[in-house]
Amino acid sequence: MKPYKEMSKEELLSLKAELDKQFKDAESKGLKLDMSRGKQSVAQLDMTMSIMDTLDSKSVLKTEGGMDCRNYGLMDGIPEAKKLIGDIMGVPAQNVIVFGNSSLSIMYDIISNAMTHGIMGNTPWCKLDKVKFLCPAPGYDRHFKITEHFGIEMITIPMTADGPDMDMVEKYVNSDEAVKGIWCVPKYSNPLGISYSDETVKRFANLKPAAKDFRIIWDNAYAVHDLYKDKHDEILEILSECEKAGNPDMVFELCSTSKISFAGAGISGLAASLNNLDHIRKSMTVRTIGYDKVNQLRHVRFFKDINGIKAHMMKHADIIRPKFEAVLSVLDRELEGLEIGEWTKPIGGYFISFDSMEGCAKAIVAKCKEAGVVLTGAGATFPYGNDPKDSNIRIAPTFPTPEEMAAATDLFVLCVKLVSVNKLLENMN
Amino acid sequence: MKPYKEMSKEELLSLKAELDKQFKDAESKGLKLDMSRGKQSVAQLDMTMSIMDTLDSKSVLKTEGGMDCRNYGLMDGIPEAKKLIGDIMGVPAQNVIVFGNSSLSIMYDIISNAMTHGIMGNTPWCKLDKVKFLCPAPGYDRHFKITEHFGIEMITIPMTADGPDMDMVEKYVNSDEAVKGIWCVPKYSNPLGISYSDETVKRFANLKPAAKDFRIIWDNAYAVHDLYKDKHDEILEILSECEKAGNPDMVFELCSTSKISFAGAGISGLAASLNNLDHIRKSMTVRTIGYDKVNQLRHVRFFKDINGIKAHMMKHADIIRPKFEAVLSVLDRELEGLEIGEWTKPIGGYFISFDSMEGCAKAIVAKCKEAGVVLTGAGATFPYGNDPKDSNIRIAPTFPTPEEMAAATDLFVLCVKLVSVNKLLENMN
Repeated sequence: MKPYKEMSKEELLSLKAELDKQFKDAESKGLKLDMSRGKQSVAQLDMTMSIMDTLDSKSVLKTEGGMDCRNYGLMDGIPEAKKLIGDIMGVPAQNVIVFGNSSLSIMYDIISNAMTHGIMGNTPWCKLDKVKFLCPAPGYDRHFKITEHFGIEMITIPMTADGPDMDMVEKYVNSDEAVKGIWCVPKYSNPLGISYSDETVKRFANLKPAAKDFRIIWDNAYAVHDLYKDKHDEILEILSECEKAGNPDMVFELCSTSKISFAGAGISGLAASLNNLDHIRKSMTVRTIGYDKVNQLRHVRFFKDINGIKAHMMKHADIIRPKFEAVLSVLDRELEGLEIGEWTKPIGGYFISFDSMEGCAKAIVAKCKEAGVVLTGAGATFPYGNDPKDSNIRIAPTFPTPEEMAAATDLFVLCVKLVSVNKLLENMN
Repeated sequence: MKPYKEMSKEELLSLKAELDKQFKDAESKGLKLDMSRGKQSVAQLDMTMSIMDTLDSKSVLKTEGGMDCRNYGLMDGIPEAKKLIGDIMGVPAQNVIVFGNSSLSIMYDIISNAMTHGIMGNTPWCKLDKVKFLCPAPGYDRHFKITEHFGIEMITIPMTADGPDMDMVEKYVNSDEAVKGIWCVPKYSNPLGISYSDETVKRFANLKPAAKDFRIIWDNAYAVHDLYKDKHDEILEILSECEKAGNPDMVFELCSTSKISFAGAGISGLAASLNNLDHIRKSMTVRTIGYDKVNQLRHVRFFKDINGIKAHMMKHADIIRPKFEAVLSVLDRELEGLEIGEWTKPIGGYFISFDSMEGCAKAIVAKCKEAGVVLTGAGATFPYGNDPKDSNIRIAPTFPTPEEMAAATDLFVLCVKLVSVNKLLENMN
């Protein structure tokens, strides 16, 4: 089929009539599918159920060092869990604090604490006239919500196939003292599914921030979330790169087991320089006596070590991969050559990113919803929910079954076609 | 024995010689005991071990409403856990949000959020010149640490047998707009072990705060922590009292299972008006996708309902009671009539509070430490760690065994005597 934009008005009108008919048929099927959020499927969760047998009333709930995990103490995590979480991120255990069930909460607390107490002796951000954050976009909507919530001005940084546009990042960070941070998902990024190149990571590590309290928030949410056994991305380890570059304190790195064990019933961790961790502990010791060490122990005893995690992640991959492939195969089959959309082909992570023609994303999402398929709201992947081109749509294939994903994607491509035809006709008037 | 202060210098000197000798003997025993923190003992923790069998890989990890507890969702807690936590506090489930493992963290986050975002539309506290909190003292050191951490000015309110000095509370709250809150442990208070009288609760509910965003932080940490089956304190339910008095939004109430199931591996909850909860949810939804619902389900299935909790707490009481009685019996036997100290005789909670002669507490704690018995630092129960009379000492009898507690208290009374004699002699010079 030829590209839509090469079609005459008559061809488009005839196509539109055909697509409208197809849409009516699709609508009548009464679909009810959700590809809006990066959630584990029931099959994945079922696959992990034996974690529930790891500890029982006969277990000795003590760390190797003899600390009773049922009682107060060890505020920053049991040593075994620090090691496990550190290995996920590729950093030494001493650079890790283990938190509760959510890395999102760690990031929120870091920003909140920077607002009220400042970072490592610097002025609290709430006392400054202006605080700015760089937001590579499309990116993770919940990152942007945190900075928005605290009234931090967000500056959109375009993404390339190698990561954020580093020329722009360097320009802002190295010249503007109000720029205090940047949100990054360096591996299998949300939603693009791309991983930062070595050059990108090195340029990050070698930033010369105007602000002493500038921090990279390195949300390594998909550190071990490969889809294939034989091909996967590797990113450079940021903490040691920053140290080499003379910027040891410039990064906070996060990870969690929300998409390894159970979402919300897992553990999470922060990696940073010892200076940063010491500063974090000062507020932490006021806020808590410690996180759930029994659950930390449960995770350590279940996974044993990083190899246990990797083996487990391959089981996840076997469940998720067919869903990604179902989506990509429909996109390829139905949209290839039409020049009405582009999409990423990730080999890990939880998302596929789709770019429609300009000004079509909102209409596509709305059209899908009419026929019972819920997508992440268009714009959500940009600061303030505002995609200037109105073209990015995040597809989250993991929750439905492969069959449901294929059906949902069939409807999605139909809506892409329909909205694109309407747009082209509109432009002709 | 006659009161020390009626003794002559010669009598005191001879007593001192005798006590010094006893102290040397005690020191040589090489005691190593800790009565510094309100921690469960190993026997208590062991008694709860069957909670570890509540859920296993065969369990259906769904709420009654069918929500999968292994996945994201239900940000403010599973309905069953809201009911259980609500019943502990005596409030309806709809007034409850269930959080993670720590009520301390809920309180920290409430204050932090008030600093950055204000309470229910009022000016963020960080934008105000002055924010003050009332601190009934002796009280809970970790409360005072939170307000100190945020630079909030703390005003000490004396405690009476019925609760805080309400004349003073009313005077400050009703006249000073900078007074934004008060810390309360209304039942079996930390460290006094006293419970607020009905009149005190009613006077709290009927405050006429100068500040619209004044809040009572009602830390009901020992709501079900009775020591006796046949005698226990009951306090009026504060939420409904506030509502009756036309102050529905004036209170945040907290509780947790840290001293019901496992410390740090339990669940916690906040009770407040629907308006307050709506406001809290606005920040909560930015901070987290939800807390550990599997652990919430574990607690609900284990305890079943409030009667299950109460039955469980009686087993705790059977373990703790002999320790309280061991302490009280030594205090009675050794110090009664000497007029060198007064102490509370709680029928619940985790602490006994001891008041020495003025200016002796620090010296007593130091003396105990010399001989191997660790007490909570003197002054810790007051804002800024500063007990103006230097007389209050918190005794936490729960962690050691009854025998250890008796031995520790023997040493304690010896140190009280010794320091008191020294003080009296000093005053004679």
